[in-house]
Amino acid sequence: MLASEFIEVFDAYCPPALAEAGDPVGLHIGTLNKPIERVMVTLDIRPETVTEAIENKADLVIAKHPPIFRPAKRLNTDNPQNKMYADLLKHEIAVYAAHTNLDIIENGLNDWFCELLGIKETSFLTKTHELDGKEYGIGRVGNLSTPLNLNDFAKKVKKDFRLDGLRLVTQHPEKLVKRVAICGGSGEKFYPDALAKQADVYITGDIYYHTAHDMLANGLSAIDPGHHVEYLCVPKLVELFNEWKNEFDWSIEFIESKANTNPFQFM
Amino acid sequence: MLASEFIEVFDAYCPPALAEAGDPVGLHIGTLNKPIERVMVTLDIRPETVTEAIENKADLVIAKHPPIFRPAKRLNTDNPQNKMYADLLKHEIAVYAAHTNLDIIENGLNDWFCELLGIKETSFLTKTHELDGKEYGIGRVGNLSTPLNLNDFAKKVKKDFRLDGLRLVTQHPEKLVKRVAICGGSGEKFYPDALAKQADVYITGDIYYHTAHDMLANGLSAIDPGHHVEYLCVPKLVELFNEWKNEFDWSIEFIESKANTNPFQFM
Amino acid sequence: MLASEFIEVFDAYCPPALAEAGDPVGLHIGTLNKPIERVMVTLDIRPETVTEAIENKADLVIAKHPPIFRPAKRLNTDNPQNKMYADLLKHEIAVYAAHTNLDIIENGLNDWFCELLGIKETSFLTKTHELDGKEYGIGRVGNLSTPLNLNDFAKKVKKDFRLDGLRLVTQHPEKLVKRVAICGGSGEKFYPDALAKQADVYITGDIYYHTAHDMLANGLSAIDPGHHVEYLCVPKLVELFNEWKNEFDWSIEFIESKANTNPFQFM
Amino acid sequence: MLASEFIEVFDAYCPPALAEAGDPVGLHIGTLNKPIERVMVTLDIRPETVTEAIENKADLVIAKHPPIFRPAKRLNTDNPQNKMYADLLKHEIAVYAAHTNLDIIENGLNDWFCELLGIKETSFLTKTHELDGKEYGIGRVGNLSTPLNLNDFAKKVKKDFRLDGLRLVTQHPEKLVKRVAICGGSGEKFYPDALAKQADVYITGDIYYHTAHDMLANGLSAIDPGHHVEYLCVPKLVELFNEWKNEFDWSIEFIESKANTNPFQFM
Amino acid sequence: MLASEFIEVFDAYCPPALAEAGDPVGLHIGTLNKPIERVMVTLDIRPETVTEAIENKADLVIAKHPPIFRPAKRLNTDNPQNKMYADLLKHEIAVYAAHTNLDIIENGLNDWFCELLGIKETSFLTKTHELDGKEYGIGRVGNLSTPLNLNDFAKKVKKDFRLDGLRLVTQHPEKLVKRVAICGGSGEKFYPDALAKQADVYITGDIYYHTAHDMLANGLSAIDPGHHVEYLCVPKLVELFNEWKNEFDWSIEFIESKANTNPFQFM
Amino acid sequence: MLASEFIEVFDAYCPPALAEAGDPVGLHIGTLNKPIERVMVTLDIRPETVTEAIENKADLVIAKHPPIFRPAKRLNTDNPQNKMYADLLKHEIAVYAAHTNLDIIENGLNDWFCELLGIKETSFLTKTHELDGKEYGIGRVGNLSTPLNLNDFAKKVKKDFRLDGLRLVTQHPEKLVKRVAICGGSGEKFYPDALAKQADVYITGDIYYHTAHDMLANGLSAIDPGHHVEYLCVPKLVELFNEWKNEFDWSIEFIESKANTNPFQFM
Repeated sequence: MLASEFIEVFDAYCPPALAEAGDPVGLHIGTLNKPIERVMVTLDIRPETVTEAIENKADLVIAKHPPIFRPAKRLNTDNPQNKMYADLLKHEIAVYAAHTNLDIIENGLNDWFCELLGIKETSFLTKTHELDGKEYGIGRVGNLSTPLNLNDFAKKVKKDFRLDGLRLVTQHPEKLVKRVAICGGSGEKFYPDALAKQADVYITGDIYYHTAHDMLANGLSAIDPGHHVEYLCVPKLVELFNEWKNEFDWSIEFIESKANTNPFQFM
Repeated sequence: MLASEFIEVFDAYCPPALAEAGDPVGLHIGTLNKPIERVMVTLDIRPETVTEAIENKADLVIAKHPPIFRPAKRLNTDNPQNKMYADLLKHEIAVYAAHTNLDIIENGLNDWFCELLGIKETSFLTKTHELDGKEYGIGRVGNLSTPLNLNDFAKKVKKDFRLDGLRLVTQHPEKLVKRVAICGGSGEKFYPDALAKQADVYITGDIYYHTAHDMLANGLSAIDPGHHVEYLCVPKLVELFNEWKNEFDWSIEFIESKANTNPFQFM
Repeated sequence: MLASEFIEVFDAYCPPALAEAGDPVGLHIGTLNKPIERVMVTLDIRPETVTEAIENKADLVIAKHPPIFRPAKRLNTDNPQNKMYADLLKHEIAVYAAHTNLDIIENGLNDWFCELLGIKETSFLTKTHELDGKEYGIGRVGNLSTPLNLNDFAKKVKKDFRLDGLRLVTQHPEKLVKRVAICGGSGEKFYPDALAKQADVYITGDIYYHTAHDMLANGLSAIDPGHHVEYLCVPKLVELFNEWKNEFDWSIEFIESKANTNPFQFM
Repeated sequence: MLASEFIEVFDAYCPPALAEAGDPVGLHIGTLNKPIERVMVTLDIRPETVTEAIENKADLVIAKHPPIFRPAKRLNTDNPQNKMYADLLKHEIAVYAAHTNLDIIENGLNDWFCELLGIKETSFLTKTHELDGKEYGIGRVGNLSTPLNLNDFAKKVKKDFRLDGLRLVTQHPEKLVKRVAICGGSGEKFYPDALAKQADVYITGDIYYHTAHDMLANGLSAIDPGHHVEYLCVPKLVELFNEWKNEFDWSIEFIESKANTNPFQFM
Repeated sequence: MLASEFIEVFDAYCPPALAEAGDPVGLHIGTLNKPIERVMVTLDIRPETVTEAIENKADLVIAKHPPIFRPAKRLNTDNPQNKMYADLLKHEIAVYAAHTNLDIIENGLNDWFCELLGIKETSFLTKTHELDGKEYGIGRVGNLSTPLNLNDFAKKVKKDFRLDGLRLVTQHPEKLVKRVAICGGSGEKFYPDALAKQADVYITGDIYYHTAHDMLANGLSAIDPGHHVEYLCVPKLVELFNEWKNEFDWSIEFIESKANTNPFQFM
Repeated sequence: MLASEFIEVFDAYCPPALAEAGDPVGLHIGTLNKPIERVMVTLDIRPETVTEAIENKADLVIAKHPPIFRPAKRLNTDNPQNKMYADLLKHEIAVYAAHTNLDIIENGLNDWFCELLGIKETSFLTKTHELDGKEYGIGRVGNLSTPLNLNDFAKKVKKDFRLDGLRLVTQHPEKLVKRVAICGGSGEKFYPDALAKQADVYITGDIYYHTAHDMLANGLSAIDPGHHVEYLCVPKLVELFNEWKNEFDWSIEFIESKANTNPFQFM
């Protein structure tokens, strides 16, 4: 089967047209015009992921974070970033990125977060697109079936995401949490919508010190579980791909990247 | 004594000319042309600090983070940021900021960090100024008298800064740490100098996920203790001000802000 | 009664949405969420107006010229501009600005100018908005019931506006004036529309020397009565507010600012 | 004699290198490579000046205000500005402009203003150039031999410049004027230097309403005699040129433009 | 007859609204408000064309290339470009330009190219406008009735355009040419459309070395006949104008410029 | 021997610091940290050059034109440009570019042009650098020992460069040529210096139609031999490299690229 045939199905599920403006989703490295047997799914493209892809003899890698963030002015391979590109090209491993479109689509990453944490009756946090008369948005806001106080809810987040640590932003750790907003990645810029939609807490990664102050000044509590919780997309996409495999009777092997690309350890 | 007389001594110690270009240090709110009796020192100007300053009947506040980051287009007091400005003006509390100049000067915040952590033989991390034939720089790099492995060193950082948590970026937690680079605040952009100056680890706050990947790709380990470790400047400045009080026989009372403005709690 | 209730009525008459793009109309200083008893109306916010507002115990000031033209990077009160903001905040006097929206709305400032000068059958000079299928514009153009020669008309303008001087731009002081264009403030950029709409003379303030040459080269005569003729809005707004007071049975006192803020005296 | 020979002498007196950056001084229209017999001096190039130059059979016009302010995208002669260019080219009348260099040089326009008003012991207002170890500046500040109160001094300015009106900006018309700053043209942006150099009053043209407020807020009084007082340069340059005529034994006739190009009449 | 009456007919044929955005078509020099007897048509306005227009006593010149490409900051006539403007103004010769609109309109220059080369069944190359529900575009693509190999077709182009040389870009000089794209002037930026529309060869002028490489890399052959082939518009416009002369019974004489303005000779 | 050792010698001859600002010279693809046995020299990196380098088992390619002109946003190999990069990386062929520095250095490409054409007593055309007290410049201007008329000189250029055609820009083909300016590549922007330095003709590639008109208007004749004459650097560099090989006793094989990358054929 050709890589392009697989991507056709993937794009129908997760359309590039639903990415944020300027977000470089799609084919980054290599070609889709070739047969594939092994597809690896990963959060990041890092040296250890490239090694893993080579060892797994992957033909195609699906990545959540686009590997070429800054256009390459040079391809000198003493630079570790360029070295990764060269290794992928040398081993003819194509890389295809789904980034904010995976945060926006229905049955996408933010929905999987809600499912994991027991957040129900969800709608999007911030509107991003209108397509064929239907509205789409990034992030989600919804309700807990059983309200918890904030401290206990933060512990639940830590346990459900299997984190070794998280950062809590609040002046009222005992307040009851009923309504939760969430946005994977670094969603701090959407916090005014969390306020407007009456969330009791906002879960998002990489909150900056002075933004945390702004949140507190506006009476919003927040949980920062880091950026790496997006790893959840790896097993979920593999699960979804295996469903398609059955449905369409494909003979492709789908592989979860096992390399841990979380750069942070909590102490 | 006039506020301006006190600031004259303070500016000689911590010259505004040694701040980074565009950093808005100096008088932010009120006037220096008035007598003062009580000076409060704080890391941030937040609603709780303003309350504290009012209760302490402070005439002047020295802050590490400039309170007006974004020029005020309006002064409508329904906005909590503007409300703080109005309360300070109403109670005639002047605010004076020393920011990156305090990170750069000798016997300044980064030196106090080194002292606390036992880092010796220090020089600056990144050159920023040349003044009267002398070089100045931000951050410090120096050596531990007793090398430790990285894990143990990170624990020492956590203990010495009394943190409830920190983030470690490394692929080699067992490596021996002899040479340490440090920069208070958000110093991630200076990491290439930490590499160039052979630091075994770089301590700085607010490291972004993708920068952490770049650090690892370049073989640099890092410790992110957050942005709030800068609180150390509060007792240290008060200590220094009291020395001046004795030396110059001032009758001013110097007060440490006790309000905790750290927006993050680790779990 | 709350300030916000009064402003709701005022905004219905003079919608902020009808201001020029980027014109900073609306609440500038303080809050509308408070009871009011005394409202002062002024053209400019200057030190003498602030003194007057304090003496009058005004709770709210309506100003034609927005007091914060340049965003405030500092609030150091040695600067006379910042001193005014501090005094207003200290005395809890809110300031609300209606600027170009008052020049554009029907039954607004330019209409009052026409009424004063006997200009009839008016329409707008330059279209600015289309709202709910209706067109709005700035300035007015209309006809005199009794044509006058230009010299006599200029004398009439001087007398009606009670000016101590004005500037006349013409090569034909004896020409008959039937059709008049007018725009309060500094409206020199709209002069091509005065030409296109066959005005015999264009009345507007602050005409620049080289623009005056351009007007003459294009055969347009002009009268520059200065910028301060906009003072007319002060008694007219107070008159209007008192009508509302009767209509809605308010117990607010409306006060005309008497401070003369015209910076120019003619000799 | 060639136009270029005359201009060589003129440029030595009034070097183009002493104009403000970007000020388009020098040859604007025609050529200097031709014999000349009649040179006309004018403040502005306007249709009536062009007519006058044609009637006077001038070969060269020296103008204080550069005739091409905005680069010409078209030369369609239905536009009155382009028509002037075409008429000058058709009659082979060259135009050469000295603008801010004439405001800056020693024995230039601002010095002539001081001479006229009896201002002595002058130095420049705002430094603009350093050339061959010598400093140059625009505007002048100096002292009156006999102090006058401001009202009387303004009357003297009106009389000496033969104005039909001027605008006075002050809150203290009775204050004594000893030290005067002056800058021809539109010099409002230099007012902070008038303050810094302890001027009791600042004379400059085209002051904008809101700048007049800033001047008052800073305690500076000002006199705005308009932009056309620069006309003084016309007789003064002709006088100077006739001195050169005697000195170098030239047979050129120098003509003062008599066309009144002041677009404003005071009423 | 007035120039404006002639231009009214011309504009109906070749509407300025169909020029590319920013293309300075229309009246460049002089006025249309005058009687005309002789109209000259030219490709370029160069010194020799101006001489010719003067000798022919032309009242109006129609030019394909707008004479004022860069706005004139000065009109000093020692500069040869300004000298041409001065000569035209002096002799009251108006200049009117039709540029890309002549490349876009139906029965315009690109259609005349197709006619000359036997290209049939044409449609535009690149869409530029949508006007009154109709689409317009620049360049043309169409088919040869008799396919030729590329070498022979290039020889035909050279012969039909009477060129002394041309440049061929190909890796397959023997390939059969059936479908041809063409765009007068410098149309290299439209080459992706020639590819998309399956042209076997693309004819356009002034191809840059590195663009030629890009064309080859994408498998496109090209013929560069230079920029001067646009001269074809001169006899064709005169032919068309003479048809109108008959139709409307005008007494104007239409003149082809004979000056050769091709700056290049091939060797 | 390492590639870096060879490049050290090459850089001493042709310093990157002597390239024009922003010109991306230096290592573009691969690494210099590897042993080399075969070095190929080429003008352009095109698909046929890459094929040739692979067949020649080259380890390093020295190219006159930098292969990455536009930073690569993607490395999808369906794009022929990216395909070249991938093939080079896959075969571990490094690419190093010397571009305008080779046009500027002494004993560089422009000097080889002069040698070929018999131009003596040369100096640079346009100054570009001052380094260690010495001036450097791009292009050359010098004299012919035997003056020729322009037509004959153009024929000599065509013959010496073995061209199938060239373009001549002149109004005086019979004029005598004694002094010649030359600049490889596209040097049309330097033509004012050719004028200033009294060249009778200027040789440079890719002259644009409207620039050719400007040259003629200024009385300058020009010869456009195309961009590909720079191919001369290929044999000259290989000759130079073989001299170094003898001098330093290297065992590297130096190979001239034989692929013809000239995209143009003259007809």
